[in-house]
Amino acid sequence: MKTNKQIKSDIEIAQAATLKPIQQFKEQLNILDEELELHGHYKAKISLDLMKRLEGQPDGKVVLVTAINPTPAGEGKSTVTVGLGQALNKLGKNAMIALREPSLGPTMGIKGGAAGGGYSQVLPMEEINLHFTGDIHAITTANNALAAFLDNHIHQGNDLQIDTRRIVWKRVLDLNDRALRQVVVGLGGPMQGVPREDGFDITVASEIMAVFCLATDLKDLKQRLAKIVVAYTFDQEPVTVADLGVEGALTLLLKDAIKPNLVQTIEHTPALIHGGPFANIAHGCNSVIATKMAQKLSDIVITEAGFGADLGAEKFLNIKSRFADIQPEAVVIVATIRALKMHGGVSKQELHMENIEALQAGLSNLQKHIETIQAFNLPFVVAINRFTSDTDQEVDALKAFCEKEGYAVALTEVWEKGGEGGLDLAEQVLQAMEQNTHSFKPLYDVSDTIPNKILKIAQTVYGAKAVEFSDKAKKQMAQYEALGWDNLPICMAKSPVSLSDDPTKLGRPTDFTITIREFKPSIGAGFLVALSGNIMTMPGLPKAPSALKMDVDEDGRALGLF
Amino acid sequence: MKTNKQIKSDIEIAQAATLKPIQQFKEQLNILDEELELHGHYKAKISLDLMKRLEGQPDGKVVLVTAINPTPAGEGKSTVTVGLGQALNKLGKNAMIALREPSLGPTMGIKGGAAGGGYSQVLPMEEINLHFTGDIHAITTANNALAAFLDNHIHQGNDLQIDTRRIVWKRVLDLNDRALRQVVVGLGGPMQGVPREDGFDITVASEIMAVFCLATDLKDLKQRLAKIVVAYTFDQEPVTVADLGVEGALTLLLKDAIKPNLVQTIEHTPALIHGGPFANIAHGCNSVIATKMAQKLSDIVITEAGFGADLGAEKFLNIKSRFADIQPEAVVIVATIRALKMHGGVSKQELHMENIEALQAGLSNLQKHIETIQAFNLPFVVAINRFTSDTDQEVDALKAFCEKEGYAVALTEVWEKGGEGGLDLAEQVLQAMEQNTHSFKPLYDVSDTIPNKILKIAQTVYGAKAVEFSDKAKKQMAQYEALGWDNLPICMAKSPVSLSDDPTKLGRPTDFTITIREFKPSIGAGFLVALSGNIMTMPGLPKAPSALKMDVDEDGRALGLF
Repeated sequence: MKTNKQIKSDIEIAQAATLKPIQQFKEQLNILDEELELHGHYKAKISLDLMKRLEGQPDGKVVLVTAINPTPAGEGKSTVTVGLGQALNKLGKNAMIALREPSLGPTMGIKGGAAGGGYSQVLPMEEINLHFTGDIHAITTANNALAAFLDNHIHQGNDLQIDTRRIVWKRVLDLNDRALRQVVVGLGGPMQGVPREDGFDITVASEIMAVFCLATDLKDLKQRLAKIVVAYTFDQEPVTVADLGVEGALTLLLKDAIKPNLVQTIEHTPALIHGGPFANIAHGCNSVIATKMAQKLSDIVITEAGFGADLGAEKFLNIKSRFADIQPEAVVIVATIRALKMHGGVSKQELHMENIEALQAGLSNLQKHIETIQAFNLPFVVAINRFTSDTDQEVDALKAFCEKEGYAVALTEVWEKGGEGGLDLAEQVLQAMEQNTHSFKPLYDVSDTIPNKILKIAQTVYGAKAVEFSDKAKKQMAQYEALGWDNLPICMAKSPVSLSDDPTKLGRPTDFTITIREFKPSIGAGFLVALSGNIMTMPGLPKAPSALKMDVDEDGRALGLF
Repeated sequence: MKTNKQIKSDIEIAQAATLKPIQQFKEQLNILDEELELHGHYKAKISLDLMKRLEGQPDGKVVLVTAINPTPAGEGKSTVTVGLGQALNKLGKNAMIALREPSLGPTMGIKGGAAGGGYSQVLPMEEINLHFTGDIHAITTANNALAAFLDNHIHQGNDLQIDTRRIVWKRVLDLNDRALRQVVVGLGGPMQGVPREDGFDITVASEIMAVFCLATDLKDLKQRLAKIVVAYTFDQEPVTVADLGVEGALTLLLKDAIKPNLVQTIEHTPALIHGGPFANIAHGCNSVIATKMAQKLSDIVITEAGFGADLGAEKFLNIKSRFADIQPEAVVIVATIRALKMHGGVSKQELHMENIEALQAGLSNLQKHIETIQAFNLPFVVAINRFTSDTDQEVDALKAFCEKEGYAVALTEVWEKGGEGGLDLAEQVLQAMEQNTHSFKPLYDVSDTIPNKILKIAQTVYGAKAVEFSDKAKKQMAQYEALGWDNLPICMAKSPVSLSDDPTKLGRPTDFTITIREFKPSIGAGFLVALSGNIMTMPGLPKAPSALKMDVDEDGRALGLF
């Protein structure tokens, strides 16, 4: 997060930094020559052969970074993740960072990078925020190749008896493009395919992105891809990728993308950036393969999950941890004075003004997320991500609250000072890891009923009193039971702004009901998405997109990017 | 081209080959460490800084490989290009190859690579034929970002007064997907954009691909992008990328793609593979930057142009040569016995049977292409690309024809024997280069009228007696004159199968008229596309796409690809 007194922008800081050639990390990380596939001077892919070679080695410990319910600008979770990794290295620890890959669509639309910020960013930020190593393009291609195979199957005689009114596979682009949300394809007569309604999502919302991030190796990737449901027949039977016979081709399209990407922070802490699924209709964490590889390459892996603890952390702990057997040793809960004041009722325009009363009212939101992490039996540290507009009195009030409750708390100034600004946090995280009782377990059993699993999440994580289901959702649950899909984890799609499903309810709402409007089965990923409210899966551009300021000079240097 | 007696497939030969790590080419080619950006072990991008450093160095000589009108399977032009490069190196010459990047769409649809074949292929062929270094994905993204900016402009108030019925910018995907040829976008009410008719082309048909391949540097790229016409206003005035203000952002999206890609052939001859525009609605040659870079890195550059000499070579010589001041020293005209028999009236099913009479009848097609190259005042060699079904009598008949007419001719067996099979061709090409009188010039002046320029091409290159224009084309020509667009080169879009615009007229048709149905202005690329007949810009998939056979093993090795 950028603080007000800073004059330099993220890109100015980034372009002034001196990076080490990425192959210089080989020795430090124990990567063989043939396992490191360079992409330019400062990015590399790491071959999955490394995982086979290091199979018997012990795994590094995982620290999960989450947050309170965010303001629209975000709370600087990635920045704290990067800063914490840097700080741990300053303390002599062998720490590594695992993050999601940013999507290009928002980069072109709304100012704001997704690789940390200030002196806690991952570099080269321009490349990470543009095409990076092409992983998202490979997923776009696999997703749309599947759509083309599907429409071609129908055009060529429709042997599978696919009902064109019941196709659930959408096309995707890694762009913000509202005009593609609802389209009609196949127009123009019998030579141009079969007309039907269709729509485009942004690529990070593709089930292939979720599959990619949960796969443990190429074989598992292919098996998951094969299970994706793309449509239903006239008899309402599911039609899968395996029915179309293209899981091999889709895996082939992803065979290089599946290798994690190695980069470095501004202080030369190594980072794997790989995969980036939405945190609402998907689980919102970087790839399982990258997290597990980082565990082989380092002693401590700092990773993050999207949005607040009610969405990202819940899904990290109930979905990713369960599938991949990754158990965090400690959790960092990022809070900002600004967001707490917002939860205490202050309007966006007045967030820069001191308001201790509102801050204290807003602490209820932090308190709820702390209780959530406690429900998973995990130790935690509250990280105050300081902005220059925060007054000492406000910071002291937040600290006093934590100290009174006995919560570990650390003030971090990682945007401005890099790892140096996160030393206290790093020390407290190390202490928290010591206190782990290793009694972590997911909140629910997958064998429980769908409504029970959702109720458990809604009550324990959101603080809801009940869950209601629309008629459509009820019908879908009955269908999923019949299909044997009911014993999967639940991926909740909910407003990230509130603990409830109503974005206007800030702080810690009570006495509310969560309404599940409908489900979306992600059988390849291995979960059922439960949708409460409308979830936008293809963003639009603002009136003046950030692209208008972007440029490149004659030497190929990016300008106007953040 | 695969010969019948070969048992190994292209991919088997490719995977059995031993490649040199690509950085080993640095010294040989005089590339500095910082100029070579590795992409894995066997691909690299070369920074445009190299062009500045070597600005004063002499340019290598260019040899253009073209062909007679092809059979649907192609005549092995890329294979001969690669084989010739290898053969020249065997003769101790410092030769390099410059080729187009293959499109993924056809790879997924119809069996057949686009990186040469047999023992004259460019490697690693799987990667070159799949995502390669992501250039085409970057072009897809830039193309579709522009479409999103355009639709967003209209949605946000349409200050430019764009007539949504007159939008000429289409979206693209690098896939064969007929269902996207004609679509309606913007459905779903006022929050989802403005409804309008739209369509998708395959990425290689994007004007951005043509712009990319004609740009001489980043600055020129941006200037060309700015000039692209995307729509017309209610007053029928053109609306450009510059009007939308996004040429900087589009250039930024292409800043890495614009760097040529270095790979090697199976015999370790260096090759630049970069850019791949269609040879009908665009000019069909690899990027100007790659050709010019290859000229700095070697003494002889072997390059090819798409389809037969009537399309690819004509456009290389009238468009690419003109814009980039690249003058070939000699031309290779690839002919196969099979294609000559087809031009002599033999059906596809009977092409494998000896038929001297048909062969001699088909020689008229070769003769016409020879006259075309002569019209440009360039020396040439006829390369007989031998297939195992060709009989000695047939080969002798073709040789006898060339010898009688005084045409240089060489039998090549580069698919089967690599460079060794192209030594005679290489020696004859070197002799032809010696004979160049350096009196090359384009066929027409750009200042001539549109109809005169087209007539010149149709008469001199196709052998047509006249050109007719539809009413629509006439109206467009009047409009272009008013807009000052009439003094641009012409990019002819015509059937590649025939010298005429009627694909059923094989051999050397006479007494025919070319009909220009309509024009498409490519103002960014800098030419007017003249369309005769229907040109497919979004292919479809066959009933059983080649993707059905594709797979990848657990070690990430591609299977079933060609």
